Amino acid sequence: MAIITLTTDLGYKDFYQAALKGSILSTLPDVNIIDITHEIQAFNISRAAFILKNCFSYFPKNTVHLIGIDTVYSEHNKYIAVKYRDHYFVGSDNGIFSLIFEEQPQEIVEINIMQDLKFLHFPLADIFVKAACHLAAGGALKEIGIPTDSVEERMSLHPIVEPDQIKGSVIFIDSFQNVITNITKDLFIKVQQGRKFNLSFRRNETINQLSWHYNEVPEGEKLCLFGISNHLEIAINKGNASGLLGLNINDIVRIDFQ
Amino acid sequence: MAIITLTTDLGYKDFYQAALKGSILSTLPDVNIIDITHEIQAFNISRAAFILKNCFSYFPKNTVHLIGIDTVYSEHNKYIAVKYRDHYFVGSDNGIFSLIFEEQPQEIVEINIMQDLKFLHFPLADIFVKAACHLAAGGALKEIGIPTDSVEERMSLHPIVEPDQIKGSVIFIDSFQNVITNITKDLFIKVQQGRKFNLSFRRNETINQLSWHYNEVPEGEKLCLFGISNHLEIAINKGNASGLLGLNINDIVRIDFQ
Amino acid sequence: MAIITLTTDLGYKDFYQAALKGSILSTLPDVNIIDITHEIQAFNISRAAFILKNCFSYFPKNTVHLIGIDTVYSEHNKYIAVKYRDHYFVGSDNGIFSLIFEEQPQEIVEINIMQDLKFLHFPLADIFVKAACHLAAGGALKEIGIPTDSVEERMSLHPIVEPDQIKGSVIFIDSFQNVITNITKDLFIKVQQGRKFNLSFRRNETINQLSWHYNEVPEGEKLCLFGISNHLEIAINKGNASGLLGLNINDIVRIDFQ
Repeated sequence: MAIITLTTDLGYKDFYQAALKGSILSTLPDVNIIDITHEIQAFNISRAAFILKNCFSYFPKNTVHLIGIDTVYSEHNKYIAVKYRDHYFVGSDNGIFSLIFEEQPQEIVEINIMQDLKFLHFPLADIFVKAACHLAAGGALKEIGIPTDSVEERMSLHPIVEPDQIKGSVIFIDSFQNVITNITKDLFIKVQQGRKFNLSFRRNETINQLSWHYNEVPEGEKLCLFGISNHLEIAINKGNASGLLGLNINDIVRIDFQ
Repeated sequence: MAIITLTTDLGYKDFYQAALKGSILSTLPDVNIIDITHEIQAFNISRAAFILKNCFSYFPKNTVHLIGIDTVYSEHNKYIAVKYRDHYFVGSDNGIFSLIFEEQPQEIVEINIMQDLKFLHFPLADIFVKAACHLAAGGALKEIGIPTDSVEERMSLHPIVEPDQIKGSVIFIDSFQNVITNITKDLFIKVQQGRKFNLSFRRNETINQLSWHYNEVPEGEKLCLFGISNHLEIAINKGNASGLLGLNINDIVRIDFQ
Repeated sequence: MAIITLTTDLGYKDFYQAALKGSILSTLPDVNIIDITHEIQAFNISRAAFILKNCFSYFPKNTVHLIGIDTVYSEHNKYIAVKYRDHYFVGSDNGIFSLIFEEQPQEIVEINIMQDLKFLHFPLADIFVKAACHLAAGGALKEIGIPTDSVEERMSLHPIVEPDQIKGSVIFIDSFQNVITNITKDLFIKVQQGRKFNLSFRRNETINQLSWHYNEVPEGEKLCLFGISNHLEIAINKGNASGLLGLNINDIVRIDFQ
């Protein structure tokens, strides 16, 4: 059975996400709808991108990922469908795709199946669902849009790298209050070259050892590790790292190598 | 695959909604269960009705909509099953159906498949699931109940209409904090007859233009439009209309036509 | 279609539960994934156990229940798979199973399909999903682990029983704020032997009648009944019992029989 995943800011308390699902099932009865989340904070494209980037590849190839965030059409917010690493994505070209993709997608089309944009009421149901179901049913990208070369770029903060130092920042805080930075494992290893390191943040907090598991330090102690996202993560064993260490989105963390 | 949707106040944190789903799957293994929402505030029939009214028709015909709110049986809260616009509904006859339906349903039965009401423990699993699965499997309404003519009526606030004015009220605030009124597009157009209008609310707030999209005004500016529900909605482009404009459920809004 | 249920503390706002679902669908495409809940408070094993105990049996036999709480491997937190009342359970042997099971399971194995525990990144996807999908596909327990005799025991507070008295405590507060105690219906009936009773809690609150339904007392009045869980429950008809009566987890309730 084809799979369509949903990543939206529609929440679970209104009728919007139900209308979206009903619309999918009316278009393609034999489909498995999986919620990634409907609890993206309204218009928080960065968070949505990080979530999708870190889970899409767990799904089978040819899964269609529908992104329902910031879906009001404009000249600067066109609708696109993309094939990337043998997965399909449908959403608004508001920069979110540049935050998800690490390399050039296999195929991009600007969706052109809508009649009259001016009077479009519910683009998610009217356009996105049609595109997603078309792809889930095995249809080709070129049948729903015009090929294009690139997605809208959106700035994201990259770590500043020097021979003996990486300066990064906090980009995600998960429900366990673990603090995830923009420093990837690949970058860390490349700069570290086997050297000892000192991770520092806030005024006086430091960590100089990498853990593999949250429980490698006593309960209540801080640690750092590369979590499921392969990003450097600061955590407290069975504790609230963000709250207790005072670390929030955009805060700076620094790694010095000896 | 048959579809059963769920609209309840059971939440996602207890065992009740899981027991409900397990019970459905034990009765009818080959069914697609879709959550409309389980986050209706306890006993908030008006909100549940508005949600279901605005999404049920997106689902395929013959979908069964199970409503699990206020399900303790009493003389004034009988269990009914209804066919309306080729969809099926199962729930307590507590007035909710009169808020969902805009015309006489095709068929109504008072469910009579329960043994002993006094000792009924979990009517949702014991009665509602049996009825819903019977209908989802293609069974007839008359096999699970006695035909009846009408559903329980529940008062809902209708707008007060005069030749040059509509006085309505706020009936729903969605997760984006958009403010939805009880003034429908049909009513608006009928009274407007092409005239200019002035929408006013709170002390000094006015809007005199209809938008099609949230982004037709600058970010942070207020607007009004007919949203997905086809009800007049007051919103702020990328902002919290309910909070910033101080509009809550039951607040009055007034439209004057020139 | 095989069913896998999920009970985790992963929440709905991150990428973890989506990665878990994607991983299941990549391993076993033809499976029905049902969320029991992902909103267990982190590491709250007692609550997870009570939820699963009270809903698993509503699902069809051979359903696989995956428990994703406290999943970091250690000598004291091994991974096991269990057959109990013809249902399958996969989880960490951290004591949760002793709180779910009321009798010796049919079969227990310590899972041994993992390669290198030290470098295990995401045990839920790497181990639990493999085990759960194996079982959901009809595979045998012995193919994924080594038979073992017992699960880790975890203390739970049992009521103190005397000929004329039961002293119990509050173990669960549901989303309606109903207060559920550890006094089961079986225990109550066994000690009561038809006598009148007086349930007391807090300073001066008493109830001396069992209800069958929440609406047997006027709205706003307190009552006690045996709810869906078959545990003694203190509620207020259409009201917030926990808040209004000041009853919280671990608070003592006492029943005196005449």
